[in-house]
Amino acid sequence: MKIKVIVTLKNGVLDPQGKAIQQTLNGMGFSEVNEIRQGKYFDIEVSETDENKAKSKVDEMCKKLLANLVIEDYKIL
Amino acid sequence: MKIKVIVTLKNGVLDPQGKAIQQTLNGMGFSEVNEIRQGKYFDIEVSETDENKAKSKVDEMCKKLLANLVIEDYKIL
Repeated sequence: MKIKVIVTLKNGVLDPQGKAIQQTLNGMGFSEVNEIRQGKYFDIEVSETDENKAKSKVDEMCKKLLANLVIEDYKIL
Repeated sequence: MKIKVIVTLKNGVLDPQGKAIQQTLNGMGFSEVNEIRQGKYFDIEVSETDENKAKSKVDEMCKKLLANLVIEDYKIL
């Protein structure tokens, strides 16, 4: 089954990439954009069929590899 | 209001970064991972308060800057 994960920077952590995108959009005429924060998205195909077991495995993967918990949060969808 | 966007590679487009993550996870003992595709996630804060108007603005931003429609799909959450 497929599990989706979103990894985002914690609030307060500087996001220069998001800032650059925001400034570009402002420059292109999208003046209504106040802030953009960029994150990562993972589509994980696991051979586990039980949803709870699959999610708990993915949770472990996030903690060990996919997210840097010092500066990032993750959400399993 | 905040609009969330996910940009993913189209099916069939090679994702070497996702492949590298998958191989790393397999090597770490997560043998149940069959495939990982990585994408981008954007948290966009716009000053527009009408949800439909905000989403249509963000749709325009995706087409013009955030996604490369030749190889990527986007989804506004």
